[in-house]
Amino acid sequence: MSTQILKNVLFGSAALLLTAACGAQEEAQSQASSATAAKADDQAKMDDQAKVNDQAMVSSSKTTKSPLFQATFDRVQQQVDAELDAEIIVPFPADAGGGYTHEQHKRNYKTIYNAGNLFRLTGEQKYADHVSKLLLAYAEMYPTLPLHPKKKEQTPGKLFWQSLNEAMWLVYAIQGYDAVQDSLPEETQTIIERDVFREVASYLSDGQPQTFNKIHNHGTWATAAVGMTGYALDDQEMVEKALLGLDKSGEYGFLKQLDELFSPDGYYSEGPYYQRFALLPFVVFAQEVEKNEPERKIFEHRDGVLLKAIDTIVHLSYNGIFFPINDAIKEKGLTTPELNFGLAAAYDFTKDPAYLSMAAYQNTVLLNDTGLEMAKAIDAGKAEPFPFKTMQLGDGRDGDRGALAIMRSGMGMTDQTVVVKNTTQGMGHGHFDKMALLVYDNGGEILSDYGAARFLNVVDKYGGHYLPENNLYAKQTIAHNALVVDETSHFDGKLAKAEEHHPDVLLFDEAANIAITTARMDEAYEGVGFSRTVAQVTLPSLDQPIILDIVRTEAEGQHQYDLPIHYQGQITKVSFPYTAEDQNSRALGADNGYQYLWKTAEANLADAFNQLTWLNKDRFYTYSFLAPSNSKGIFTRLGANDPDFNLRNETGFILRQQGKSDSVFVSVL
Amino acid sequence: MSTQILKNVLFGSAALLLTAACGAQEEAQSQASSATAAKADDQAKMDDQAKVNDQAMVSSSKTTKSPLFQATFDRVQQQVDAELDAEIIVPFPADAGGGYTHEQHKRNYKTIYNAGNLFRLTGEQKYADHVSKLLLAYAEMYPTLPLHPKKKEQTPGKLFWQSLNEAMWLVYAIQGYDAVQDSLPEETQTIIERDVFREVASYLSDGQPQTFNKIHNHGTWATAAVGMTGYALDDQEMVEKALLGLDKSGEYGFLKQLDELFSPDGYYSEGPYYQRFALLPFVVFAQEVEKNEPERKIFEHRDGVLLKAIDTIVHLSYNGIFFPINDAIKEKGLTTPELNFGLAAAYDFTKDPAYLSMAAYQNTVLLNDTGLEMAKAIDAGKAEPFPFKTMQLGDGRDGDRGALAIMRSGMGMTDQTVVVKNTTQGMGHGHFDKMALLVYDNGGEILSDYGAARFLNVVDKYGGHYLPENNLYAKQTIAHNALVVDETSHFDGKLAKAEEHHPDVLLFDEAANIAITTARMDEAYEGVGFSRTVAQVTLPSLDQPIILDIVRTEAEGQHQYDLPIHYQGQITKVSFPYTAEDQNSRALGADNGYQYLWKTAEANLADAFNQLTWLNKDRFYTYSFLAPSNSKGIFTRLGANDPDFNLRNETGFILRQQGKSDSVFVSVL
Repeated sequence: MSTQILKNVLFGSAALLLTAACGAQEEAQSQASSATAAKADDQAKMDDQAKVNDQAMVSSSKTTKSPLFQATFDRVQQQVDAELDAEIIVPFPADAGGGYTHEQHKRNYKTIYNAGNLFRLTGEQKYADHVSKLLLAYAEMYPTLPLHPKKKEQTPGKLFWQSLNEAMWLVYAIQGYDAVQDSLPEETQTIIERDVFREVASYLSDGQPQTFNKIHNHGTWATAAVGMTGYALDDQEMVEKALLGLDKSGEYGFLKQLDELFSPDGYYSEGPYYQRFALLPFVVFAQEVEKNEPERKIFEHRDGVLLKAIDTIVHLSYNGIFFPINDAIKEKGLTTPELNFGLAAAYDFTKDPAYLSMAAYQNTVLLNDTGLEMAKAIDAGKAEPFPFKTMQLGDGRDGDRGALAIMRSGMGMTDQTVVVKNTTQGMGHGHFDKMALLVYDNGGEILSDYGAARFLNVVDKYGGHYLPENNLYAKQTIAHNALVVDETSHFDGKLAKAEEHHPDVLLFDEAANIAITTARMDEAYEGVGFSRTVAQVTLPSLDQPIILDIVRTEAEGQHQYDLPIHYQGQITKVSFPYTAEDQNSRALGADNGYQYLWKTAEANLADAFNQLTWLNKDRFYTYSFLAPSNSKGIFTRLGANDPDFNLRNETGFILRQQGKSDSVFVSVL
Repeated sequence: MSTQILKNVLFGSAALLLTAACGAQEEAQSQASSATAAKADDQAKMDDQAKVNDQAMVSSSKTTKSPLFQATFDRVQQQVDAELDAEIIVPFPADAGGGYTHEQHKRNYKTIYNAGNLFRLTGEQKYADHVSKLLLAYAEMYPTLPLHPKKKEQTPGKLFWQSLNEAMWLVYAIQGYDAVQDSLPEETQTIIERDVFREVASYLSDGQPQTFNKIHNHGTWATAAVGMTGYALDDQEMVEKALLGLDKSGEYGFLKQLDELFSPDGYYSEGPYYQRFALLPFVVFAQEVEKNEPERKIFEHRDGVLLKAIDTIVHLSYNGIFFPINDAIKEKGLTTPELNFGLAAAYDFTKDPAYLSMAAYQNTVLLNDTGLEMAKAIDAGKAEPFPFKTMQLGDGRDGDRGALAIMRSGMGMTDQTVVVKNTTQGMGHGHFDKMALLVYDNGGEILSDYGAARFLNVVDKYGGHYLPENNLYAKQTIAHNALVVDETSHFDGKLAKAEEHHPDVLLFDEAANIAITTARMDEAYEGVGFSRTVAQVTLPSLDQPIILDIVRTEAEGQHQYDLPIHYQGQITKVSFPYTAEDQNSRALGADNGYQYLWKTAEANLADAFNQLTWLNKDRFYTYSFLAPSNSKGIFTRLGANDPDFNLRNETGFILRQQGKSDSVFVSVL
């Protein structure tokens, strides 16, 4: 891209944005048909992986059974058969997450669940007997179990360190039991139901009201577990408690969670990582409700919000990986097992062939009727590309507490994607990153979000918990592509205050060649308001869309403004002079996350127009920005004050304006 | 792995090695049949990509044409057809590698080559005419061209900055011309032959004797280009010069290069990156020799060394990527276009179906008869897994100047692989890393080699040349997993001295559960000799093979010994206390590559037994080592004194013994 074009874009940006904002609505309508045509073209770009999978499956469509279903069946049967011959191991609880007893109890509930499915499919009694043996071993131990020795303070479990895992155990185990129940002697049923399922369900409901009645994903797991147990044991009282709360008032419980936790667009305020996790109990319990009490029309509840949530979680991804906003393990994505259940439920109700391409991408299906139906449809080549698109997802119960903006240059999984986080805080796992920007292109991150500082299930890393650096760095504003005022985080890093406020979305619109959003935040800092406008613009003269970013501040006193970008790649060109820290590198600050950044170089920016270029895979990315007088550029690398090697040593660049009240940052990527 | 097992392994290592060394030979024979059985099992692990490709291809085997061939044809035809309508652009040479005129002349020779192939396949005159138009444009310009304005000192070109690119231009262009020649008017042929091909060939031979007569890959490109031109123009004099040198004595030229450049095992002393590059002209010219003068039996020359070289280059890879020893761009691997030609030639002569799986992995074939034959065979499911295996490749003309040891835990592309570089220096692109160790597992690098410090074709990075940091860091010993004495590099970083010597390989052997090599080097340092024994050992009690590494030094005076490991991953556990540089990080040294390393932490190692564990993808790797008294552990990160951001910020750990004459480093990974 020539410098001249960029300058025109930058200096003409105000006019462009005005035009775009006013014209977008009409243009959107008049361009609708041509946009549809363009999008049809884009379908051709649909991600390679899915295509390859599709092809591989289509190739075997002549076999009578479905190869995809058969492959899943074989894999699961092999696992379970290996367990049949081995000793039953139900250890006395001792270890925290990732430890031996924790993992063994997890293995056991999966075996119970899988053996139940195999019994249903094959009718072989050995599978039912194995479920029975395992559950009888639990029946011997569970009734006298104390709280777990490594218990988490607020939410202890008995088999596991936290009751969340106990609820997961029950969600899976009750499904396995439900499948084999009728084939077991009545006496066995009595023992198992009395000493295992009623015990666990009682502990998770009456024994843990603070969790059971909580409007939170832990509450969803608990209510789903107890409700499903109620259906399996024909105990309507248990079901009612699960649906309506312990007091059956409807003020708590599963239905209330469905009302509160998702926005009307199906967005979950904790973000995609937890949405994926919360979705499983919502989906499996809802399917049981539908089966046992169809008159509740659970899937139509709130305009079908549950189906929307399933659809939305797929949209909340790039190249198969979820947007890592808030506390998120960055590797998680569309192949996560939780989504198997979600896609199956969504396909079951809608028969939308786009879900088939996602199931093909997962390369596995559920071992039940829906799974078989999906596998056959995939094998028969009926999958269609999932229609990724530009969209805004409203946040909050009524969808009016901010929004997540997603702008895509095409329908493919790897087309350029821009995300602006104009959402609420997202509760305790939220990050202090109002109006943060994420950019993806060419299959990977270009401007990235750190995600959570956590090594899940790595015992040597703080027991697999969130690391101290999660609060101290990952949640802090400087860890994001978001404005920092006076080296302090938004809302001074205080959760309660952050929960009260959200950005006001002033604009979100799209037309054929532009998508744009503007949001404003006045409460993140005392006396400083700021707005951010981000636009993805396709110019005929350029191969790739450009991203225009304007951050504007208004304040009374003088402040320091830092706008960081966390770029992924190797710097190839810097248009301005700077001084590198060659022999000696120092931490950039003392607090609010700054203490973790090494300063690697610094520039006094005299020129108005500056460019920073880096290489990522086979593409160059140039960050072009206007630097007002008295501004600085600071190059950083993560890793200072990190004696335990807990952080990834990522790179960043901070554009800093000092002693300003009002200011504007204008940049183009 | 329990600490106790490891301790046993470490302290029992001497006995184990003795047994292994003595028993390996007999054991190898007695275990031969069971090893074969085990390897048959391993075939099942054969890399997924190839499988998916195979499946996709097999699925379409019913179509009359070959889908793989057709796909390649379509892709090339689309490219060339787009050019047919566009203006002929033959710019006056101006830019260095990566610049506009450089890239345009590259595009042109590919178009000439591809259009020639399309003419042969379709008979459509428009393709011949396009070749003619392009070559006539060159005919107008070339005879009066001066040397390139950005010329490289030793080897200037005219169209390109270096004559190497000019030779590449000729190798491709002559093939395109050869295909269409007979369809062009005689007058046109005369002009093109006189003003283009004879001019370029004359410049590359008589005009550049220093390159043409050089025993080096640049010489191979030049002789191949001129020799192929000789055959195409029926000029036997040109052919003779190419084969036997300018004076036709046989002291220089293509045949001499074939004698000198490859070892009897087909190993090229510059390493795989350059072997791949050098292979293309060897292969395409040899095929012309075979076609025009079969009596020369060129493919049987030196026991079929050329076919061995093709086979060897595939073995010199892990998970599709070449071992990045010496100056190597790390991304290069089996999908490189140069290898298309090599695999086609190898398949043509041997019909070995293992080459088909490699061609399937490349997902492309040549647009000629061999390519069609291969594509049909692949479509028909005839591809067989390439038999990756443990092997030693002798280096040097007679195979007695050191060797490259490759130890693999299985036949798959991603089975654990250990490489020990007991080879010669490898000429000007060689690194000072005698007996360096590389470890791969689970699809990626575990102990890595930096490769070359170069951004190929990135003009903003030193014009795409090797960066200054290539000599100053990447070639230095500390940049490798190799012993450094007194913070100076092997042979004091002097090429001439390094070329004289090579490690003595004392042992290389393998049996069912162990592969082992020992080499010794006495000339890398004045007065200090050292040996390294590396073994890949499969223990029944462990899932993965362990790697045992013993470095032993003998010297008279006192010295400092550094044994670095460049690990890939995130540290999760350190068994010994250390002091991190929290606020302030300093460069580790002043010279020989040490100036580029930040010291991030340091430990005084009091205990005899230490462990360092890191996480890479979903596996943990523990480096367990014996630390004698007075030793230190130093954690490093690359990037000090790197104001231009030219280096990747990789991590390392140095085990340092000070004030020692004789010492032993024993470690297990």
